[in-house]
Amino acid sequence: MSSTSRIHLNVFVPTTGHHEASWLHPGTRPERLTDIAYYRETAAIAERGRFDSLFLADQLAIGRSVKHVAQGKLEPLTLLSALAGATERIGLIATASTTYSEPYNLARQFASLDHISGGRAGWNIVTSWSAEAAGNFGLAQRNSHADRYRRATEYVEVVRKLWDSWEDDARRHDRTSGIYADTDRIHAIDHQGEAFRVRGPLDLPRPPQGHPVLVQAGSSDEGRAFAARYAEAIFTAQQELADAQAFYADVKSRAAGFGRDPDGIKILPGLSPILGSTEAEARRNEEELNDLTIPAVGLKHLSQRFDGFDFTVFPLDEPIPVEAFPRPATVQGAQSRSQVILDIVARERPTLRGLLRRLAGGRGHKVLAGTPAAIADHIQLWVEQRAADGFNIMPATVPAGLADFVDEVVPILRRRGLFRTEYAGRTLREHYGLVRPASRYARSA
Amino acid sequence: MSSTSRIHLNVFVPTTGHHEASWLHPGTRPERLTDIAYYRETAAIAERGRFDSLFLADQLAIGRSVKHVAQGKLEPLTLLSALAGATERIGLIATASTTYSEPYNLARQFASLDHISGGRAGWNIVTSWSAEAAGNFGLAQRNSHADRYRRATEYVEVVRKLWDSWEDDARRHDRTSGIYADTDRIHAIDHQGEAFRVRGPLDLPRPPQGHPVLVQAGSSDEGRAFAARYAEAIFTAQQELADAQAFYADVKSRAAGFGRDPDGIKILPGLSPILGSTEAEARRNEEELNDLTIPAVGLKHLSQRFDGFDFTVFPLDEPIPVEAFPRPATVQGAQSRSQVILDIVARERPTLRGLLRRLAGGRGHKVLAGTPAAIADHIQLWVEQRAADGFNIMPATVPAGLADFVDEVVPILRRRGLFRTEYAGRTLREHYGLVRPASRYARSA
Repeated sequence: MSSTSRIHLNVFVPTTGHHEASWLHPGTRPERLTDIAYYRETAAIAERGRFDSLFLADQLAIGRSVKHVAQGKLEPLTLLSALAGATERIGLIATASTTYSEPYNLARQFASLDHISGGRAGWNIVTSWSAEAAGNFGLAQRNSHADRYRRATEYVEVVRKLWDSWEDDARRHDRTSGIYADTDRIHAIDHQGEAFRVRGPLDLPRPPQGHPVLVQAGSSDEGRAFAARYAEAIFTAQQELADAQAFYADVKSRAAGFGRDPDGIKILPGLSPILGSTEAEARRNEEELNDLTIPAVGLKHLSQRFDGFDFTVFPLDEPIPVEAFPRPATVQGAQSRSQVILDIVARERPTLRGLLRRLAGGRGHKVLAGTPAAIADHIQLWVEQRAADGFNIMPATVPAGLADFVDEVVPILRRRGLFRTEYAGRTLREHYGLVRPASRYARSA
Repeated sequence: MSSTSRIHLNVFVPTTGHHEASWLHPGTRPERLTDIAYYRETAAIAERGRFDSLFLADQLAIGRSVKHVAQGKLEPLTLLSALAGATERIGLIATASTTYSEPYNLARQFASLDHISGGRAGWNIVTSWSAEAAGNFGLAQRNSHADRYRRATEYVEVVRKLWDSWEDDARRHDRTSGIYADTDRIHAIDHQGEAFRVRGPLDLPRPPQGHPVLVQAGSSDEGRAFAARYAEAIFTAQQELADAQAFYADVKSRAAGFGRDPDGIKILPGLSPILGSTEAEARRNEEELNDLTIPAVGLKHLSQRFDGFDFTVFPLDEPIPVEAFPRPATVQGAQSRSQVILDIVARERPTLRGLLRRLAGGRGHKVLAGTPAAIADHIQLWVEQRAADGFNIMPATVPAGLADFVDEVVPILRRRGLFRTEYAGRTLREHYGLVRPASRYARSA
């Protein structure tokens, strides 16, 4: 096998599992969401599986359904800093918002995490669509979709300049000459933009990876354009092979349009596997989880996806008409995800209750109940058919569902020569096979 | 010994030492400022000494003297999150600015650190006086002293409300009833103030300490008023016993004026000890460090203390007149520190070069060269004379100077019954003997 794995696997670390009712399942630990040992144990399972990375989402608010859904976990950047010392090789990706923070603060926290972890940091860039988050930051109304992406673009530019502001060899610590740092290699960035004015330099040296790995998850038109320009890994929700192939081709070609190597952007659709030793057992395991769901919770989640639209007016046990939904193009939240949901409705014509059960597992991400071999087949097919470079694994339950995937699916992928047996590299960039960027301020040799 | 120690010791963890020239000294490790193992080793020495806490400063900018001074360390909140797993009992205090961040972001990072460390987090509240920091956050000019403190006051109110927003027993995770959290015990804070509008609740449960310990270091009139109202520990620069006693009495009485128990606010003057086995050897060790200083560096630091005033117009080897300095009351930076420096000039009438050497060790904090017994005497005297509740120890060099203090001074303090031999408590509040605050939203029983 080459120095990087043929496919890439990230684990999306949830509170108790990606299934909405996971905390009610005996395979989860709902009492441990603020217990650092719980996350250390989860990270250890993922590292035992030789995952490329683990990833933490972030909403900057408690959702409306905390009464019935496990919420209130540790903050991603502090949690990953703590996990850096408890792990050796796995990449550590934190979500952070460009809408509610200052680029100087975020640049240095990610740079610091990259130093602390020896080059294993990644930043999942989000623009924070929820109205709840807006209320925690003094905004009566959240910004529009387009405004958020315009700010995000400038924000990422500032952060990358700051990461470049110390050249790699700026530090000398030469006691003989009394020179601590070569100030010709430490640069003010003097950014003057629409949203930000930042003088720089950053207050700590360049991260080991040059730039922590940039990850993105928006799949709307603006989201794709942003990802094609900046992202090095993309998390995306895809239900159907053909749609995933189209998305894959579109993003890779957009990346090429920005002068980038299409292989420098890894596309990782979400996949929530539910395992069973037979197909029938897997289906039963899925039904067992779905039977634990509470329709009121699903209705709140669905409503949040469509800007607060009220679905309680529809009967639970009748097919819900496609026309009942607001148009995704008018949604100011996560546009692409609302389209995924609408496609499911158009394709499968479920009752409202059926739709809620359908979404309880992956919130629009692919849920696949099957044998370990069937899950491995799906992964292999999508990678071979150029629908994915790997997967964002979303265990329905944690730790049980993650451990099952590591113990039962990963060995099959290895036998097929698809996935690494040992880490070849030390940094997240090396795991994903990504180039380390040079500082834009470095003088050519 | 009672459950808390008679005196309290915090170690102020620097880059290579608090002496400006420390990185040129063989007892330091200037090449390791971004190496997490370096900080783990330093924390282990402090924990071996049973210090109450360790503390990290933060400037949000690189100073002007990086060419000749070791700068560019890890970011405090990520660094302390990493150290939480490498330590067991010692408190972890991070500096964070109220001027350049959002209260929701900071509240949850400190809450998360408190969870990660099992109740060992402290927040040193600063308002960020440097013009360099202002330039990194889009301000052409920094805010005035008064404006910064007005914002800080509202900021701390918001953060404390957010920490209270989940009552201690809000989580139920009761699978039988399907109730994850008791939403009657999770509260929106609905803060509407001059600088902030924050809806809340926080997105994670109440910190183990209720509130992470609040620390403050401003000693100006506005700084004291702020500290008397909120701080539970105060770092202060004091040169003379009588001045320290006056400060101590003033802050304790102001605290009582806010209805607080004066014992609920611990006053810790800075102390940079330079040890020797004899008085003469200690002096030689101090001179050895001072001989490594570069006047141009000291001149830049002095200038920064006085809003950029240019001291290079004065001859280095003539006494510098008190009248040459800008008045502290007009200084928009750290007012109290500029007063400390002016008092030294008035009292000691040094040459400019002499003043620079005088400030190279502690930047206005007390530098004391002496035998271990003499250092212990000073500590004991100031505590017995009600000038201090303990000290903010600022080793001239790290790790050497810190290890010397732990190995040579701490045992004397223990023999005298002044300092703990083992940790009695588990949380930072317990180390300092501070009450755990109840949530303001808790219903009375």
